[in-house]
Amino acid sequence: MHTLDDAYREFRRDLHRHPEPTWREFYTTARIVEELRERDLTDLYVGPDALSTEDRMNVPDEAEIAAWEERAREAGADPGIVDRLSGGYTGCIAVVERGDGPVIGLRVDIDALPIRESEDADHVPVAEGFRSEREGYMHACGHDAHATMGLGALDAVLDSDFAGTLKVFFQPGEEQVAGGKQMAESGHLDDVDYLFAVHVGLDHPSGEIVCGIDGFLAVRHFLAEFEGAPAHAGARPEEGRNAVQAMAAAIQNLYAIPRHADGPTRVNAGLVGGGTATNIVPEESFIEGEVRGATTELAEYMSEHADRILESAAEMHDCEVDVATKGEAPSATSDAALSAIVGEIAGSTDGVTNVVESADLGGSEDATFLMQTVQDGGGLACYVGVGTDHPGGHHTNTFDVVEDDIAVGVDVLAGAIHRVAETRP
Amino acid sequence: MHTLDDAYREFRRDLHRHPEPTWREFYTTARIVEELRERDLTDLYVGPDALSTEDRMNVPDEAEIAAWEERAREAGADPGIVDRLSGGYTGCIAVVERGDGPVIGLRVDIDALPIRESEDADHVPVAEGFRSEREGYMHACGHDAHATMGLGALDAVLDSDFAGTLKVFFQPGEEQVAGGKQMAESGHLDDVDYLFAVHVGLDHPSGEIVCGIDGFLAVRHFLAEFEGAPAHAGARPEEGRNAVQAMAAAIQNLYAIPRHADGPTRVNAGLVGGGTATNIVPEESFIEGEVRGATTELAEYMSEHADRILESAAEMHDCEVDVATKGEAPSATSDAALSAIVGEIAGSTDGVTNVVESADLGGSEDATFLMQTVQDGGGLACYVGVGTDHPGGHHTNTFDVVEDDIAVGVDVLAGAIHRVAETRP
Amino acid sequence: MHTLDDAYREFRRDLHRHPEPTWREFYTTARIVEELRERDLTDLYVGPDALSTEDRMNVPDEAEIAAWEERAREAGADPGIVDRLSGGYTGCIAVVERGDGPVIGLRVDIDALPIRESEDADHVPVAEGFRSEREGYMHACGHDAHATMGLGALDAVLDSDFAGTLKVFFQPGEEQVAGGKQMAESGHLDDVDYLFAVHVGLDHPSGEIVCGIDGFLAVRHFLAEFEGAPAHAGARPEEGRNAVQAMAAAIQNLYAIPRHADGPTRVNAGLVGGGTATNIVPEESFIEGEVRGATTELAEYMSEHADRILESAAEMHDCEVDVATKGEAPSATSDAALSAIVGEIAGSTDGVTNVVESADLGGSEDATFLMQTVQDGGGLACYVGVGTDHPGGHHTNTFDVVEDDIAVGVDVLAGAIHRVAETRP
Amino acid sequence: MHTLDDAYREFRRDLHRHPEPTWREFYTTARIVEELRERDLTDLYVGPDALSTEDRMNVPDEAEIAAWEERAREAGADPGIVDRLSGGYTGCIAVVERGDGPVIGLRVDIDALPIRESEDADHVPVAEGFRSEREGYMHACGHDAHATMGLGALDAVLDSDFAGTLKVFFQPGEEQVAGGKQMAESGHLDDVDYLFAVHVGLDHPSGEIVCGIDGFLAVRHFLAEFEGAPAHAGARPEEGRNAVQAMAAAIQNLYAIPRHADGPTRVNAGLVGGGTATNIVPEESFIEGEVRGATTELAEYMSEHADRILESAAEMHDCEVDVATKGEAPSATSDAALSAIVGEIAGSTDGVTNVVESADLGGSEDATFLMQTVQDGGGLACYVGVGTDHPGGHHTNTFDVVEDDIAVGVDVLAGAIHRVAETRP
Repeated sequence: MHTLDDAYREFRRDLHRHPEPTWREFYTTARIVEELRERDLTDLYVGPDALSTEDRMNVPDEAEIAAWEERAREAGADPGIVDRLSGGYTGCIAVVERGDGPVIGLRVDIDALPIRESEDADHVPVAEGFRSEREGYMHACGHDAHATMGLGALDAVLDSDFAGTLKVFFQPGEEQVAGGKQMAESGHLDDVDYLFAVHVGLDHPSGEIVCGIDGFLAVRHFLAEFEGAPAHAGARPEEGRNAVQAMAAAIQNLYAIPRHADGPTRVNAGLVGGGTATNIVPEESFIEGEVRGATTELAEYMSEHADRILESAAEMHDCEVDVATKGEAPSATSDAALSAIVGEIAGSTDGVTNVVESADLGGSEDATFLMQTVQDGGGLACYVGVGTDHPGGHHTNTFDVVEDDIAVGVDVLAGAIHRVAETRP
Repeated sequence: MHTLDDAYREFRRDLHRHPEPTWREFYTTARIVEELRERDLTDLYVGPDALSTEDRMNVPDEAEIAAWEERAREAGADPGIVDRLSGGYTGCIAVVERGDGPVIGLRVDIDALPIRESEDADHVPVAEGFRSEREGYMHACGHDAHATMGLGALDAVLDSDFAGTLKVFFQPGEEQVAGGKQMAESGHLDDVDYLFAVHVGLDHPSGEIVCGIDGFLAVRHFLAEFEGAPAHAGARPEEGRNAVQAMAAAIQNLYAIPRHADGPTRVNAGLVGGGTATNIVPEESFIEGEVRGATTELAEYMSEHADRILESAAEMHDCEVDVATKGEAPSATSDAALSAIVGEIAGSTDGVTNVVESADLGGSEDATFLMQTVQDGGGLACYVGVGTDHPGGHHTNTFDVVEDDIAVGVDVLAGAIHRVAETRP
Repeated sequence: MHTLDDAYREFRRDLHRHPEPTWREFYTTARIVEELRERDLTDLYVGPDALSTEDRMNVPDEAEIAAWEERAREAGADPGIVDRLSGGYTGCIAVVERGDGPVIGLRVDIDALPIRESEDADHVPVAEGFRSEREGYMHACGHDAHATMGLGALDAVLDSDFAGTLKVFFQPGEEQVAGGKQMAESGHLDDVDYLFAVHVGLDHPSGEIVCGIDGFLAVRHFLAEFEGAPAHAGARPEEGRNAVQAMAAAIQNLYAIPRHADGPTRVNAGLVGGGTATNIVPEESFIEGEVRGATTELAEYMSEHADRILESAAEMHDCEVDVATKGEAPSATSDAALSAIVGEIAGSTDGVTNVVESADLGGSEDATFLMQTVQDGGGLACYVGVGTDHPGGHHTNTFDVVEDDIAVGVDVLAGAIHRVAETRP
Repeated sequence: MHTLDDAYREFRRDLHRHPEPTWREFYTTARIVEELRERDLTDLYVGPDALSTEDRMNVPDEAEIAAWEERAREAGADPGIVDRLSGGYTGCIAVVERGDGPVIGLRVDIDALPIRESEDADHVPVAEGFRSEREGYMHACGHDAHATMGLGALDAVLDSDFAGTLKVFFQPGEEQVAGGKQMAESGHLDDVDYLFAVHVGLDHPSGEIVCGIDGFLAVRHFLAEFEGAPAHAGARPEEGRNAVQAMAAAIQNLYAIPRHADGPTRVNAGLVGGGTATNIVPEESFIEGEVRGATTELAEYMSEHADRILESAAEMHDCEVDVATKGEAPSATSDAALSAIVGEIAGSTDGVTNVVESADLGGSEDATFLMQTVQDGGGLACYVGVGTDHPGGHHTNTFDVVEDDIAVGVDVLAGAIHRVAETRP
């Protein structure tokens, strides 16, 4: 195809109207599962069957999960499916076996962001009536398009003479780098020989395909909670153990972790707070922050320094600190053998006007967990970029995709999957 | 009297049921004015007529004010009076002229605190059915008793052969040290020759009178709002101007303002926060804090240092900062000539078992603005402590007063006012 | 006497020409001992016999001690005496027993400061030819006068009908608050019933006597030495463990130790340094600092916080820190019973024109160790101030004393000692 | 040649025995000029004639310069030449014109380091008797070899049929990145069409030639001097303006300058200090530090942030700060057209066993000023690495070069100069 078929368009718009954040993708998963059930699949793993259920990161509290579950039901999601996702175990995996051949995976992510979508009349979802119906949440990074590509590529492979096994991973919780690890550790990646992942946009225009994206910054999100003791700031300042002083000492020194000669590192104290009132020595404070590195080792270097700084800043002011990891992703590299195949296919795909061998993401992504699992098992992995003219930047309230570019992505991915099954590079 | 009359008891309990914070004392002021209208007053100044209306500190936003105004109406406050308080100009001044004599003032404060009152069955307001009806707010510092003492003392003076002028100042906004300055600058203090202020409790037991309280820490509450520029913490950290780094540098250095040889100083960054998300360089942050000093000069010393630190911390990280004063009170000293009279009266007052010459507050209070205005004009001022066995500490959710101690306070204050009018010390 | 006798004048000027710092008072001690040997003493304890030799603080290195020892010999100090002071065990104690009576102590300090004395022709030691012959060192705090008073008071008591035991403590190392502890723990204070200590000047003019000085700030001097690891700042910044970052974090937070409601506290990072070259990540750094408190408890509060901050600042940057106490003194209070006697005597002493009951030192002094030892043993102690018109402030290069005021001090001290022996207050 | 001739060996060892730091290369320059005078030069520019004399960075004080000048004379340097270098204007430029052809430059640096040379018997300069005679200083970076290569290459070109102009730049003050700017701005680079610079070692073994070195970090050395006001830390802490607090705030925040997405940056507070005594609030402090960047723009980014931080840290503690640039170098890139020629020549040079196309310096070098000047004028520049088995690392006390590798360097450089004159690439 070259123009996106109406069925896929409707499907993408339905997801766009129902954006759901990490571990709350009830409606989204249910809609995907409903579609998949109509296909001739070998296996379909839903929710807890598609994930490792141990040590999930950044799980919202029960009330929050229940509220989104309820919203999904109200919006018409299949109650039986929603039941299977209970506790926020979202996402699913579709498997088709077609004769003798390698196991090939395609990973797409499905979650949305806490951004209020633009009401501008020029914003296409507004103009065409599929603006977010979850006020304050939005598909501002194209994961609605990704889920659609996953479905489209599955259909294209099913329609072909593909010989092998295809697994499509509909992964939850990418935006908080919390879902990738759970899916990577589900066991379903263990026999995958070749893995593709995909992203739209990334400042690449419509018609451009990036064959292999690299430059993933390994990342760790953390939440540090400091606890001291309150005191009346006028009457008994010495009785306080000041959690805000501890927090400030930590912030100052976090940003001052030494630069590393092996490559870029990052650190940010992105959301902080503490104390209760002007005249009370603050008992509590927190830092929600992150560290990153161009390699997994560099991120670990930053993480170790951050832990030590947080711990000693607490101790410095006689406070306690609890540091929890809220999200995580390693670095990864696309294998040239796979991206070469993507380049070949893209070169002869309608709608592709420019083929770029490789580009850097310059950010973080937890597809890397899945890529790493496959590569550690001796397989190959490749992260493909599908250009699209997005009016607003990623994570802004006017982000949108050109829907026909979804069709281009489907053609490239399905073509590459087919070729890989044939050639086993 | 020696036991509190039922009318006063009911009045106090009515106020206790309707606690209202700074600039939102609509019901409280209305109830006081309703009572005062029944007295034979020379003058009654209400709301904006009782205050300087310029440069009010810490005024809530309009919606917040409107909500409390509405609550007051719903609770049955006289709509005409509430109208006169529009915009949050709360408080009032009662004036009685009785022949030739000095002008004597009595200042009582009327506002409440953002504390949720205990539901413990042993807590008297629970047991006797007058627990706060404003969830999350409470008279946890006895200002309901103070307002009642103001009314009681006025009645006692009216009942006596007092010769002179008595002004009773029902002051709003003490808890945020925001109301004292406005009332002090209203002009109504300018002709006051002698001023009394009063506080219950302060860890002095029932039966104890403190003739003159000193040791008021001069104080300034400030709100510093930092503004920088956001950036993606992974992709473009250098484009950020980090308001959280500015805040942290300020906090570290605020607490490090040099100690002063002339006396105690204090500083606290009591409530702080900043940033929006883990991966965004923080654009905004704030510090709600305070500085104090044993004298007004010491508080100014701290305040100047704090301003310079906040300003240069912002500049250090290429941010802007706006520093606003949210509350303020100078230091003050009780005049011995007045406290001597209080001691004399207290010594022969029923219910008084212990007379203490003086004690230190060790905290802050904006009655000092009124005291200072009177003293600067050549008059005398005295801050009187009326002991009461309070089960919980001040500003805790089980604070309460022994109501009969209100009667003791009324006797001492009215007696002292009468004696001062006679003796003009 | 009323004018200082020439012998004492010469003695004082000899000491003034040979100023010696802590644990290096070889010439000074030798000259005192030479003088004492000419008196009819019961006992004379020199050097290690006058001190506890355990855990001496702030002892210079051997080469430094040897150099001063050599200078003393060259200046004509008795070699036998200098031998007994070997290792820098300086100072001495003179004891006279005269029949039945209490044991009374007089403590004077004898060390000098690392200050280069003024060469101004108006500076009396220049004009009269007794300027310091130890370039860079100076008696800028009057300890030359104190030693002379000790000798003079001893002589005056010997000349009187005094009945009891007098011990004169010539204490080394006061300026670094290092000598007092050693002398206090020597055992020689254990039987002292009454102790006097004395200081000239302190901004009190000639003719003024302060009967009992209080307000000694308890103090601890510390040296914190940080050790990390060096690295090339351009090529391998991550390999450094930055001792200067640790030092900076410590400094920021030391000054921010919470103020204490019980009284004044102090902290200072007075001499700091670190690193070797612009392009090397600093391996080493140090802080020479101090904490003080109005009471011994307050100084301990500061000291505990300082230790914790130094330790965690080191840990924060993966460094080690070694914190050593270099000097120490507790707080103390003059006993009113003794200062009353000083007041009585001063009131009838020639040359005294003003008697001040008490005054605050507002600084630190390790006479307090001796005072505390006596007071802990049930005795009384009193620190006396002898006014003098000093042209420059204490610890400045133009400090000097009016020599006749030494005679006034001797009369007051000897008189008080005599009276105390009679009255046993 | 292939083995270094004795004359060059003697020359190199003479320089090695007389290591001289930045702006103090009196003996070194004199010896070079003496040699050059024996050649048939077209021009010889010495000292101030070889440099821009404006805004020299990091000039030692007069006494220091005079002392080194005197040492040079005593060691037998030609007094007339030393006179021409008066004031520390060291270095020289040799010019030979040989018919029609391009202007080709060769830059070698001549200064030494403040490192005490090893006395180990295995250290060749010890074993062969040419250890440093300037205690505490050492040619620990091979600039003695560089100067010798400059002379050798000049001789080789003079011996050839070279047609064109050759300028050999004997540059002072590289180690403090202070001399390059002055020579670059002398005017003598303005007509240079091709420039070579050279460095031995850099962890490349004997026999290896690096044709074009890149990866120069742009750098700025700065000295920040803070000035506040002293005060007695016990008696009057509030009167101090604490230069050590300002320094500590600056250090904390310097290291926390945001990382930059465009490439590596560096910052170091390498040598810091402040204060005078434990009990004095510090009046003065300083930071000797540096910032670097992979590009000149990145170094400027760091420099601007550093300046702002230093300024506002001073202001924060009511201090003044003076920030001076003590050394500076931009980044630069070797031109491929020149390094290709170096590769060609090296490939056929005796003694060369390995030719490396390019490598990163990963440090800073002020040859970049000269390279930039030539490149800005439309010329080409290339920085060549000549491998040598150096036993100790650069800037360590056992650094040394294999002297025959100097001969290899001479052959490669002279060969490349000759070829460039022919081919004008």
